[in-house]
Amino acid sequence: MLRILPKIRYNGIRHYSKLPPKVSTLAKFDFPLATHTVQSINSDLDNYLNKQQTKITLNGHINRKSRIRPTLGFGFLRDTNGDEIQLLATPDHTNSSIFELMKKLTVEDSVSVTGFIQQKESKSDGNDTQAVELELVVEDFQILNSSNLEAAQLDKLKHNDPSQIPPQFRYLQLRTPYYQKALRLRSQTAQLVRETFIKNHGFTEIETPLLFKSTPEGAREFLVPTRAFNKFYALPQSPQQYKQILMSSGFTRYFQIAKCFRDEDLRSDRQPEFTQIDLEMSYINNSDQVGVVVEDIIHNVWNKVAKKPTYKVNKNGYLEEINHDQPNKLQFEKLNYIDALTKYGIDKPDLRSNLSFTSLESYFTAQENKDFPVLEICILKQAFDPATTKKFKIPKTFTDDHNFPSRRPYVWAVNGPQDVTSWYKKLLDANIISTTSSFDESKLLAELNLEPGDVFAVSTRSKFPYENPTPLGKFRQLAVQEYPHRWQRPIVTEDGSLIDDYNYNDMVVGSWVVNFPLFNPIEIKSDEDKDSKYPQYDYTKYESTHHPFTMAKIEDYELLESDPLKVRGEHYDLVINGVEVGGGSRRIHDPALQQYIFEEILKISNFQDLFGHLLKALSMGCPPHAGLALGFDRLCAMLIGSSSIRDTIAFPKNQSGVDPVVESPTGVSEKALNEYYITTKQ
Amino acid sequence: MLRILPKIRYNGIRHYSKLPPKVSTLAKFDFPLATHTVQSINSDLDNYLNKQQTKITLNGHINRKSRIRPTLGFGFLRDTNGDEIQLLATPDHTNSSIFELMKKLTVEDSVSVTGFIQQKESKSDGNDTQAVELELVVEDFQILNSSNLEAAQLDKLKHNDPSQIPPQFRYLQLRTPYYQKALRLRSQTAQLVRETFIKNHGFTEIETPLLFKSTPEGAREFLVPTRAFNKFYALPQSPQQYKQILMSSGFTRYFQIAKCFRDEDLRSDRQPEFTQIDLEMSYINNSDQVGVVVEDIIHNVWNKVAKKPTYKVNKNGYLEEINHDQPNKLQFEKLNYIDALTKYGIDKPDLRSNLSFTSLESYFTAQENKDFPVLEICILKQAFDPATTKKFKIPKTFTDDHNFPSRRPYVWAVNGPQDVTSWYKKLLDANIISTTSSFDESKLLAELNLEPGDVFAVSTRSKFPYENPTPLGKFRQLAVQEYPHRWQRPIVTEDGSLIDDYNYNDMVVGSWVVNFPLFNPIEIKSDEDKDSKYPQYDYTKYESTHHPFTMAKIEDYELLESDPLKVRGEHYDLVINGVEVGGGSRRIHDPALQQYIFEEILKISNFQDLFGHLLKALSMGCPPHAGLALGFDRLCAMLIGSSSIRDTIAFPKNQSGVDPVVESPTGVSEKALNEYYITTKQ
Repeated sequence: MLRILPKIRYNGIRHYSKLPPKVSTLAKFDFPLATHTVQSINSDLDNYLNKQQTKITLNGHINRKSRIRPTLGFGFLRDTNGDEIQLLATPDHTNSSIFELMKKLTVEDSVSVTGFIQQKESKSDGNDTQAVELELVVEDFQILNSSNLEAAQLDKLKHNDPSQIPPQFRYLQLRTPYYQKALRLRSQTAQLVRETFIKNHGFTEIETPLLFKSTPEGAREFLVPTRAFNKFYALPQSPQQYKQILMSSGFTRYFQIAKCFRDEDLRSDRQPEFTQIDLEMSYINNSDQVGVVVEDIIHNVWNKVAKKPTYKVNKNGYLEEINHDQPNKLQFEKLNYIDALTKYGIDKPDLRSNLSFTSLESYFTAQENKDFPVLEICILKQAFDPATTKKFKIPKTFTDDHNFPSRRPYVWAVNGPQDVTSWYKKLLDANIISTTSSFDESKLLAELNLEPGDVFAVSTRSKFPYENPTPLGKFRQLAVQEYPHRWQRPIVTEDGSLIDDYNYNDMVVGSWVVNFPLFNPIEIKSDEDKDSKYPQYDYTKYESTHHPFTMAKIEDYELLESDPLKVRGEHYDLVINGVEVGGGSRRIHDPALQQYIFEEILKISNFQDLFGHLLKALSMGCPPHAGLALGFDRLCAMLIGSSSIRDTIAFPKNQSGVDPVVESPTGVSEKALNEYYITTKQ
Repeated sequence: MLRILPKIRYNGIRHYSKLPPKVSTLAKFDFPLATHTVQSINSDLDNYLNKQQTKITLNGHINRKSRIRPTLGFGFLRDTNGDEIQLLATPDHTNSSIFELMKKLTVEDSVSVTGFIQQKESKSDGNDTQAVELELVVEDFQILNSSNLEAAQLDKLKHNDPSQIPPQFRYLQLRTPYYQKALRLRSQTAQLVRETFIKNHGFTEIETPLLFKSTPEGAREFLVPTRAFNKFYALPQSPQQYKQILMSSGFTRYFQIAKCFRDEDLRSDRQPEFTQIDLEMSYINNSDQVGVVVEDIIHNVWNKVAKKPTYKVNKNGYLEEINHDQPNKLQFEKLNYIDALTKYGIDKPDLRSNLSFTSLESYFTAQENKDFPVLEICILKQAFDPATTKKFKIPKTFTDDHNFPSRRPYVWAVNGPQDVTSWYKKLLDANIISTTSSFDESKLLAELNLEPGDVFAVSTRSKFPYENPTPLGKFRQLAVQEYPHRWQRPIVTEDGSLIDDYNYNDMVVGSWVVNFPLFNPIEIKSDEDKDSKYPQYDYTKYESTHHPFTMAKIEDYELLESDPLKVRGEHYDLVINGVEVGGGSRRIHDPALQQYIFEEILKISNFQDLFGHLLKALSMGCPPHAGLALGFDRLCAMLIGSSSIRDTIAFPKNQSGVDPVVESPTGVSEKALNEYYITTKQ
């Protein structure tokens, strides 16, 4: 056992080969419970202030370093609600053994203190408006558990920047108000979501298995070996297939707040296990029937948990507060995929921004790559003040290649009148673009109306954009970050007046994105073209834009045979503030059609092994159905105003997939692996 | 692709290499939604009966074989609530193309039907008391999806005994009323549990990771390989360690309805993944504070979901309905482990039965095994009528060795006066028992008062019973099954009268079992003694009776050093109707004491690897805490009156761990395994 001693000592833990002393140990278990909290005292102050006979017990942690001298001591208790109160030890009321005990205090010890409440001696700072500051005069004191040295070392961080507390001390971080609030709000949100499903819409929550089947496609999955040779479960990426089987099982309205797993390379804000709000409804003949339920949840959580109204973009392009008079109608506006891509360059545009693109197709044709002929422009009107700025410098964020997934747009600033035309002259001279037969310079200049102070970006895209975001779509995102609160979409009030000087971060703007292509051409990634700034596609091979169970739009049915890439899917994404909060679709419940898509379009030769169980379930009279899934971690992060889902997860994994608190994953003995008929292999 | 054809054909699915025909396929997606349900029609019958102009659309499945002749057709629709209605096709209202369509119907097709409601032509069976029987006269009809041949083959089972439907057709089984109700009730229970925690007790639901760390002890765990060499996660057997870390994270009242995993050999009614209601509370100085919350949940779900009152055993040994006047007090009685074992021979006695044991220690000493000297008896008073029964035959269940985990008791029937003494004379003659110095035959006979008609069992146990159940405890369980509704514990009503002819299955009787030994001696399983009918223990080696985080009773603290087997734990089990519904404990929050128990008592030499993270979390001033977990699957099964948890799980695994619906687990390619640095090994 001795080998572990140095480490324990280092952590400030003593070595215990003997039974710890009885009296001090049992005092940790036998103690007075809190009679009050700081809050409950404050809410009924007249009853407690200076009433020595009214004994008050508080439980909590020592929040800051104590100062205990022989004649006077000050401690600082954080109660179980997180509120702080000063503890005063004074010889008049506190006996000497308690003074001795309090000298042993370190920050983050948990304690039980009994005494009475009095007003703190005011420091004459002349500030009369402050609330009465209280202290608890200590008459009895018990240390319920001691903290180690690290707690003291981290005390400064705890008060100043808890996010910087090393992740292995997650428990200390979680004790701070921000994280306490984050996880409590997550619990509140989950319960409100469940109530909305069950009470408003008659849904049933049904748990689906986490020990699922390996169906390799899409993201990489986690495998779970069993004690049978070469038999593995897989952890589900979503309950998609089971929930469709539930639709074939007579449940017409299913939901689940479900754990899902993806063994992907963890980007900045992904987790190998995550939570989604999952729903499915049968006897549905229109996706809006699902959307109405989802919107009820979304409006509810924003209004009731985050206490913020929700907005839509109305037909005039203004932000309009959602009116809840028509609960059976979709409230958020629908945006076509193709419109989102051509106006905003992305399928999840942040519609708080008013920035959009103008196509220059009628004037120019891009020449660099024949598959990307469309030239388009995004203008940042009056990005700078030409009167006070001599020579405007383009912000670096727009010219950093790393910010763009493929090529970056050409960006110019209009410093003087010559810049209104010079940009396309340069592009023409360099043969990057050519004019079309309908080119008309005066019409172009009138349409763009470029003026000194404007900054603009020009880029290319394919006729039907599969790039997502396009270079200009990425530029728009960067512009929104670079110029906060500029070019905001106006809010229209009830009396028709427009407001555009609102706080961007307070707005919640949602929309449905619809009419996605059902299939994408498969992207070719050849070694020789790996530096190409234009993606290359094989237009004869298709993959599902979302998943292979999505139904085609009825109008496009025959295109499934003649021109699959032209088929639009019955898929719908819910986008809020530029974040894809959820996505769903009508499903294919007809096994013949589903098999045709597996076999003839997606060319999945082993579809029977992978999806035979689903085809079988469909073939037993499974009714028409549709559903959706919302990312719960992301939704909670948005509700607390955080950009990181880690803030809403009690014990997140780090970017290496390691849980720094329990130090998983770990090595496993060969003997244990043998039971599962596996062995490690380098 | 041809290779899969035979199988598909066999399942009644056609082969689809062509895009299915447009019109019939799109009719499956574009259809009229239900305007009504059978229930909504019945509840407002005057508005619908014989009103041809009031069009009614119903959606649902074909519930039975249709009979469609050229001039008259009958179909049977089961709507989305599960209610059945007859469909009438008649040339007056139903056009011939619909007759043709209806001829194609098979049972379990999903359909949308439109028409009007009329009264069925009554068959003159003279039964006037029946409600009006309705039929829907068909005017429009769409098949939304066809079912395959198997649905028709299983139709008889579906109506007569859905539990016998082959498990791969779980979806068909789930469509039947029993399973629909079971899963809906589970959803309702989960929501009521959450409401009780949150609204009544201020708890926060917090999700803990499912990708946890391998801590091999207790049941076998599932491993999850990662894409790092010899690094594995493990799926958690419970959130125990994370919830204790949450207590060190400032959350004072945590709960979670959590998925847990155990890779055990699946006994009749175990599942590799299961769900538990998990809770933990900090700043607790008495286990009852946890018990009060748990009881609120238990009383609530039985009263509100199952609509049944809950009962306790009162001080007089009678069943008494729980009175809800004192919400902050435990209602169920506490039963000591030692009393449960000596009176009922098990730590989870079914207290609806009044059967208990009498110790014969003062008369006899058992001689077969010196560690099992106590002789005890269980009498089934008047098990048969001696007046009508010539020679009573002992029920086989009592004499079948397979029914008893170790030895089986000696069982006799009192047929005549000689049987009152002959049994112990035989045992004395065979040297199986000996008399004690205080043996007094007349006192013995008076105490037992055996009479013709009685059946009794005699067996042995150790002074402090670690066997659980004891042989006699197992006998008691078998007697309760063999003689339903006999020897029931009387219910005492408010006016003091006693009732004992109640229905056993309607009663809900709960109790807390407390004062378990904190440690058990480790059982020795040597090959030479494997046929021994007495377990053997090494009384110098200890294992935790429940888990190593359980606190000792304060009164027994010093025994931890001097005599660990005498230490009672602060553990409490909740037992309802003989089922262990949950268990919990006060935890050790003092890291010094926890380490002492790991190291000095349990001799876990690598405790730092396994539990170092927990010791570290405790050492940061973790407050005192206690908690409990309830088996949610079992609770739901009890609420619907089922003995099988499978009835409350949508897609259970079978006894081989196979999901018969999706056919998991499956083989995985060597290439996929390579990514995880593992390979299969026989």
